[in-house]
Amino acid sequence: MEPLRCDGRRLMGRLDQLGAVGRLEDGSCCRLALTDEDRQGRDLVVSWMRELGLEVRVDRVGNLIGLRRGSEDLPPVMTGSHIDTVATGGPFDGCLGVLAGLEVVQVLNEHGVTTRRPLAVAVFTNEEGVRFQPDMAGSLVYAGGLPVAEALALVGIDGRRFGAELERIGYAGTLEPGAIVPHAFVELHIEQGPILDQEGEALGAVANLQGISWTEVTLHGRANHAGTTPMGLRRDAGHGAARLACFVHDLAQELGGVGTVGSLRLAPNLINVIAREAVATVDLRHADEQVLAAAERRLEAFLQDLRAQGLGVETRRLARTEPVVFDPGTVRVIEQAAASLGQRIRPMTSGAGQDAQMLARICPAAMIFVPSQGGVSHNPAERTDPRHVQLGADVLLRTLLTLAEERP
Amino acid sequence: MEPLRCDGRRLMGRLDQLGAVGRLEDGSCCRLALTDEDRQGRDLVVSWMRELGLEVRVDRVGNLIGLRRGSEDLPPVMTGSHIDTVATGGPFDGCLGVLAGLEVVQVLNEHGVTTRRPLAVAVFTNEEGVRFQPDMAGSLVYAGGLPVAEALALVGIDGRRFGAELERIGYAGTLEPGAIVPHAFVELHIEQGPILDQEGEALGAVANLQGISWTEVTLHGRANHAGTTPMGLRRDAGHGAARLACFVHDLAQELGGVGTVGSLRLAPNLINVIAREAVATVDLRHADEQVLAAAERRLEAFLQDLRAQGLGVETRRLARTEPVVFDPGTVRVIEQAAASLGQRIRPMTSGAGQDAQMLARICPAAMIFVPSQGGVSHNPAERTDPRHVQLGADVLLRTLLTLAEERP
Repeated sequence: MEPLRCDGRRLMGRLDQLGAVGRLEDGSCCRLALTDEDRQGRDLVVSWMRELGLEVRVDRVGNLIGLRRGSEDLPPVMTGSHIDTVATGGPFDGCLGVLAGLEVVQVLNEHGVTTRRPLAVAVFTNEEGVRFQPDMAGSLVYAGGLPVAEALALVGIDGRRFGAELERIGYAGTLEPGAIVPHAFVELHIEQGPILDQEGEALGAVANLQGISWTEVTLHGRANHAGTTPMGLRRDAGHGAARLACFVHDLAQELGGVGTVGSLRLAPNLINVIAREAVATVDLRHADEQVLAAAERRLEAFLQDLRAQGLGVETRRLARTEPVVFDPGTVRVIEQAAASLGQRIRPMTSGAGQDAQMLARICPAAMIFVPSQGGVSHNPAERTDPRHVQLGADVLLRTLLTLAEERP
Repeated sequence: MEPLRCDGRRLMGRLDQLGAVGRLEDGSCCRLALTDEDRQGRDLVVSWMRELGLEVRVDRVGNLIGLRRGSEDLPPVMTGSHIDTVATGGPFDGCLGVLAGLEVVQVLNEHGVTTRRPLAVAVFTNEEGVRFQPDMAGSLVYAGGLPVAEALALVGIDGRRFGAELERIGYAGTLEPGAIVPHAFVELHIEQGPILDQEGEALGAVANLQGISWTEVTLHGRANHAGTTPMGLRRDAGHGAARLACFVHDLAQELGGVGTVGSLRLAPNLINVIAREAVATVDLRHADEQVLAAAERRLEAFLQDLRAQGLGVETRRLARTEPVVFDPGTVRVIEQAAASLGQRIRPMTSGAGQDAQMLARICPAAMIFVPSQGGVSHNPAERTDPRHVQLGADVLLRTLLTLAEERP
C-alpha cells in the first residue's frame, strides 16, 4: 500500500487564507496576539477544526486544542504551534505548524484511519512576544512555567491587559492549561534561518535549541566637542559601544554560537558631539549551557575593561533561557519518518525560541524544520518552497502516526 | 605708567546679562540665529555699543559692526565673534569675544585713549549653523565666500528663510558685507576643548585651525533573525558600522588628529534582528591638509573592504574645509601682548570652526583662547574662570592697541 501523503496544495491554500487575515498593504501579516486580527485568525482556524470534526477546547490563557479521538483513551500525541505574528510577519511562521496539523487530520479522516492515541492540534497564545512579554507565554503557562494569574495580568505595549483582551476577543476558555498532558509533542516549523536553504537540504530534525542571553548595556561617557577634544582625553560612549559590538561579534565567532548587537542608540547622536551615552543590546546564543555561561563571563570582563578605561557601565538582564535538548527518542522517530519517505534529514539546532521548548518540560518533544528561502523570516518576503511544505507535512504525518501507535 | 587693564568683573556682568537672554529652565542658553531671542540679544549688545559711543552699522546679512574712530582714517582693527548659540548653549561661546571687545572700548573711553586706527567690534550672524546651514554664514559672506543672495535664501530647520527672518527681527541692514576690510582681525574665544584646562595654562595663541571632513556613511546589510543566522552567513550593517567607528577612532589616534562617529542609527534597531541598515557620520579633523586627505583615502579604502565583505556602502560628503593657518605676524603680536603681562601663552590649534577663519581670507587674522573648565562647551555647564576671562580680555586689549598703532 502507498503510504499516506498530505495534500500540499490544500495546505498551501489554508496558509494563503490565514495569511490574508491582518494582511497589510506591503503584503506582511500583522496579527499581534489578542487583537481583532488574532480573533479573526482564531475564528478561521476553529471553523476548520470543526469542519474536520475536532473537539475544540480553549484554556484559560486562550490556547486552543483541537482533539481527534483515538481508539484508546490515552494521552494524545500533540502537534501545533502559534498563529500570532510579529508586526510585519510572513505567512509561514507558526501557521505552518498549526495548519499542517489540520492537514494531517484531514488526510486521516479521508482515509478512515483511527489512531490508537488521540491526536491534538494546538494553537498557543502569544508566541511572538511582540504585544505581551514574555514570548511563548501560552505554551509557557501550558507547561507550568508561568501561573495563569500572572499571564492574565500581563500588560501589553499598548497598555491593555492580557486577560481583558482575551475576554474581549472571546477566547478566555475554562480548561486548565496543561490539563491535557501529551504523550509527545512534535512541531513543524520553518527554520527562520539560512542553513537548510544554503545547504540545499529539504528537512531538518531539531535535536536541541540554543540558550539565549539578552543583556542591555548602557555606557556613560562625556559629551564633548568632536573637534576640540583630543583622542586621549575622551570618554566616548559611542566608541565604547562600537567596541562592544565588535567584541560580541568576534566572541560568537570564536565560541561557535551567535552574537548580535541589533539595537544601539547614542545620545545626543550628533555629528560633532562625542556621545555622552550609548544603549546597546547584546543577544548571545549557544546550544551548550557551559559555553553560553562562559560567553557571559567574557562579556562581563570586557565591560570591566571599559569601566577601567573611564566609561560608566550599567547592565540589565533582559532574558535568559538555558539550552533545551529535545527528546532523542522523538527525534529518532522523526528521522525514521523522513527515511521511510526516502528523504535525508539534517540534524539541527534551533536558533529561535519555540513553543516546543516549553512543551519539552512536560513531555517528550522535538521539531521538524523546513527551509526558509534566503533565511528570511519575520518579513513579508518569508517564503518556503511548496515542495518543502509538502515534505514537512508528510514527515509530520508519519511521525504522528508512529507516536500515536505507541503503547502506554 | 601702569598698563591699561580691563574690568573683568564688568565683563563677567555683561556675560551674565547676555546669558540670561533665551535662558532655559536647565540654565542653558537658546538663542538660535535670527529668532526672537537672537533679536533680544542683539538689542542688548547694540544698546551697549551705543552707550559706549560706537557707530553701529548693520550689513545685509545682519552682521553688526560697532565702530570707534581712530586719529587717522585708516582701515580699522577688528575684533568680535558671535552671540547666537546652539540649542543648549553656555554663556561664553562667542559672547566672550563680542563683550570683551566692548570692554576694551570702554577701558579706552575711560582713559581717553584714541588709537591711530579705528577699532571695530563685530557680531557675526549664524555662527553656530544650528538653525541655518552653513555654520559661520555671516562671516563667510563677510569674507566673500558666499553671495548675499544665497545667504538670504537659506532655509532653516524650521522651514523659515534667512532673509525673511532677518527682516522680521529688524536686522536686515544696508551695508554691503565686507565693505569695511579690516587691517587685522583678532578674536578672543573659549577653547571649547580640554587642553588648556588639563595643562593648567591660562592662555592660548591660536596659530592655525584644523581642516574638517564630514561624511555620512550608509551601510546596507540584510535584516535577519539574530538567533537563526550563523555568523558566517550574515550581512550585518550594525557590525559594519561598529567596525567603522573603531576604525575612525584608531585612524585619528594614528594620524594625530581627531576622529568621531557621533551619530549612528540602526534599522530596524531591534534586539533580535540583525541590522538591515546603519547610518553613521564620520567627523575627521586635522591641521595638515595632506594628512587629512590621506585620512579620507584610508576611510575610502576601509569602506571598500566593507563592500568586498558584502555590505552595500553609500557615502555623502556633508562638509569639507581645508585647514587654516593664521597670520604669523598677528600671532606674534598676541604672544608679545601676553609676554608684556608676564603671562605664558600656549601655541594652539583650533579644533572648532571659528569666524576668524573666514576673516583670515581678507585680512591678517588670529585668535586668543582661554580655558574651558573640563573642556565643556555647547552645554549649560560651560564655564571659564573669571581670572582667565580677565587675562584673555587684557591680552586682547594690548593686542588691539598694538595693531591699531600700525602705520599703513
